[in-house]
Amino acid sequence: MSHPKNAFYAQSGGVTAVINASACGVIETARKHSDKIGKVYAGRNGIVGALTEDLIDTSLESDAAIAALRHTPAGAFGSCRYKLKGLEESRAEYERLIEVFKAHDIGYFFYNGGGDSADTCLKISQLADKMGYPIQAIHVPKTVDNDLPITDCCPGFGSAAKYIAVSVREASFDVSSMAKTSTKIFVMEVMGRHAGWIAAAGGLASSEDCDLPIVILFPEVVFNREKFLDKVNEKVKRYGYCSVVVSEGVKTPDGEFLADSGMKDVFGHTQLGGVAPVVATMIKDALGYRFHWAVADYLQRAARHIASKTDVEQAYALGEAAVELAIQGENAVMPAIIRKSDVPYQWEMGKVKLNDVANIEKKMPLSFISEDGFGITEACRKYLQPLIAGEDYPPYNGGLPSYIRLRNEAVSKKLAAEFKVG
Amino acid sequence: MSHPKNAFYAQSGGVTAVINASACGVIETARKHSDKIGKVYAGRNGIVGALTEDLIDTSLESDAAIAALRHTPAGAFGSCRYKLKGLEESRAEYERLIEVFKAHDIGYFFYNGGGDSADTCLKISQLADKMGYPIQAIHVPKTVDNDLPITDCCPGFGSAAKYIAVSVREASFDVSSMAKTSTKIFVMEVMGRHAGWIAAAGGLASSEDCDLPIVILFPEVVFNREKFLDKVNEKVKRYGYCSVVVSEGVKTPDGEFLADSGMKDVFGHTQLGGVAPVVATMIKDALGYRFHWAVADYLQRAARHIASKTDVEQAYALGEAAVELAIQGENAVMPAIIRKSDVPYQWEMGKVKLNDVANIEKKMPLSFISEDGFGITEACRKYLQPLIAGEDYPPYNGGLPSYIRLRNEAVSKKLAAEFKVG
Repeated sequence: MSHPKNAFYAQSGGVTAVINASACGVIETARKHSDKIGKVYAGRNGIVGALTEDLIDTSLESDAAIAALRHTPAGAFGSCRYKLKGLEESRAEYERLIEVFKAHDIGYFFYNGGGDSADTCLKISQLADKMGYPIQAIHVPKTVDNDLPITDCCPGFGSAAKYIAVSVREASFDVSSMAKTSTKIFVMEVMGRHAGWIAAAGGLASSEDCDLPIVILFPEVVFNREKFLDKVNEKVKRYGYCSVVVSEGVKTPDGEFLADSGMKDVFGHTQLGGVAPVVATMIKDALGYRFHWAVADYLQRAARHIASKTDVEQAYALGEAAVELAIQGENAVMPAIIRKSDVPYQWEMGKVKLNDVANIEKKMPLSFISEDGFGITEACRKYLQPLIAGEDYPPYNGGLPSYIRLRNEAVSKKLAAEFKVG
Repeated sequence: MSHPKNAFYAQSGGVTAVINASACGVIETARKHSDKIGKVYAGRNGIVGALTEDLIDTSLESDAAIAALRHTPAGAFGSCRYKLKGLEESRAEYERLIEVFKAHDIGYFFYNGGGDSADTCLKISQLADKMGYPIQAIHVPKTVDNDLPITDCCPGFGSAAKYIAVSVREASFDVSSMAKTSTKIFVMEVMGRHAGWIAAAGGLASSEDCDLPIVILFPEVVFNREKFLDKVNEKVKRYGYCSVVVSEGVKTPDGEFLADSGMKDVFGHTQLGGVAPVVATMIKDALGYRFHWAVADYLQRAARHIASKTDVEQAYALGEAAVELAIQGENAVMPAIIRKSDVPYQWEMGKVKLNDVANIEKKMPLSFISEDGFGITEACRKYLQPLIAGEDYPPYNGGLPSYIRLRNEAVSKKLAAEFKVG
């Protein structure tokens, strides 16, 4: 019997609260099928690790350590922002990857990332075939941006959405308490440069059993200062206060980022601050209301302590399914979440060809944005609600979550040539 | 048998994740002693509600609703920023308060706040006595600033500290994953204009079992640009990345807030942004490292979802003790947490005279700041650790915490005169 091929796994792009849950799903499932899959090597700092032959031997980690990945945020093996381009332009890199895989007897390539990595994954599969060293390339979806097509949602998004919904609810309770004599406006800046998925989650803070005045600024809706100020004022008149959720990607009618419109550093450069203080100051200047503002930044995608149970389960299941697809002989595919019903939320694991995923961006449907442009519709709520459902708390030690850090021991190099990245 | 006197309860100043737990302690305990205490009336929007005779009848709330206050953040009856001054200057207001209390047969005054409210509480007790309508005035401590003397800590602080420690740990894991090719610096701005208690909590993110590179900028330490940049660079060289926790109160050698030093709006006004982007840009300009930054603002004091169990228990116990002190006939006192041991953390309920609390600010001991000025000492860790210990999760519904909103029905007014506030 021939020795089973090894597998390579890498994390790509911005990390999330649950990308390690997918890693856990990949590694635990591979361990169950040791007759089919040898060792799982992880790329140290994503694909850069493969290019530089800096591989991590995950077989040296205990079962308990791998299990702990399920409740640990961020990328346990390191990620990277390193985009491989087309086959022509980045040929040397693709070829190097296949050389490294060949040297380490790697027959499976699991790439955990967003749209760009789906494309890379597809290209590796194509080129490997041409180079006579076939590799089964499976993409594992991940992105807080929630912009991959076909799959119901992308792991990482549900937890970011839950964090934003919970935070906006809590801050709204706070500003509500202060509004009589002090702060009337709370502005929260959220991620999403191209799409308003995360901003929309702020709308969930207000629900049937907990009505809150929330105004959302979506990147999909061109910013209209007058309409926005009117809407905020209307909420303050009715509720006494207002919470504003603003996407970093909101643009002015000129097509500029609103974030860039208000501030200059001492040398006259724009930028520095985020869009939250711009919006807060605009309200203060026009309406006179005192404000507070927050920028969640990494906190929203790293907040494993308040991760969505749905999200954790799906992230794990997608890692598991990726390995199962590989064992079934699949190539150039991605496991995907297929929604069967909204209430109760039911989903099953599907399979998508990478050809149908790569370079296709899922936009937020405009039917998810209320007619006035400042809120979410029932359709949006129906879509989002199950994705933030359930809690999945990490274990704690001394008041802090116990997140695992792996040993991450390197695999001995086999290639003579160094490879210069970037 | 004479009808027992009613009680008045009000929330003052910035609200916290657990001030309602104190309210819960006050009201539940008063209900247990209905032979001694009649109804508990709450001030709508704090002391402003008393001045305007806008009282809330908490007896109309169910036991379940009152119990739910224990897990609900912010001020359920509304708070206010309204400082009563000295007896001379604010005499009309003090006299009005006592008139209102008299009209509603209020014999107990429970004031839930920080240093200023302790002072108000003391003055009310003194003046009431002089005016021939004695009121037992008990202060219930609360403040994320943790600056009341004698008590081991102030309710609200432990939960804010836990939020900051957890968030800094999570964001550090995130930036660690990204550092190879992208972000190397994460800057988190925290509250504490006068004292570094909350900033110090950022230091807890790094622990014996989870070493992280964290640099703290305290308001107690005059900002030194060169030393700071050297320290950050040293961490990046050693760990590959660095997290910076910066207090909003950090000052330059000129005595200016560092937050004001970097930014101007388009009209040339300073301010707008916080100190986080100033620090992040400074690092980028000097060292070239890519950064991300977050401003937690209200999120840190409203985050009931990650409240400290110690904090919730103490907040409740202080509310309970306040009522018990009142029943014992005490006046012009505050219940306080007395620490008996660090490990295991043991505390008992004490009692402090308001004379010994009012207008005295507890500073963070300089022995809590490491010699280089950028970290916390073992003594600090020993003090802080128990305060963030334990989790006390709220119930959830559909992915979101179920926070109670009370009916807050008004008590009928009895006084003819209106009172104009402010």
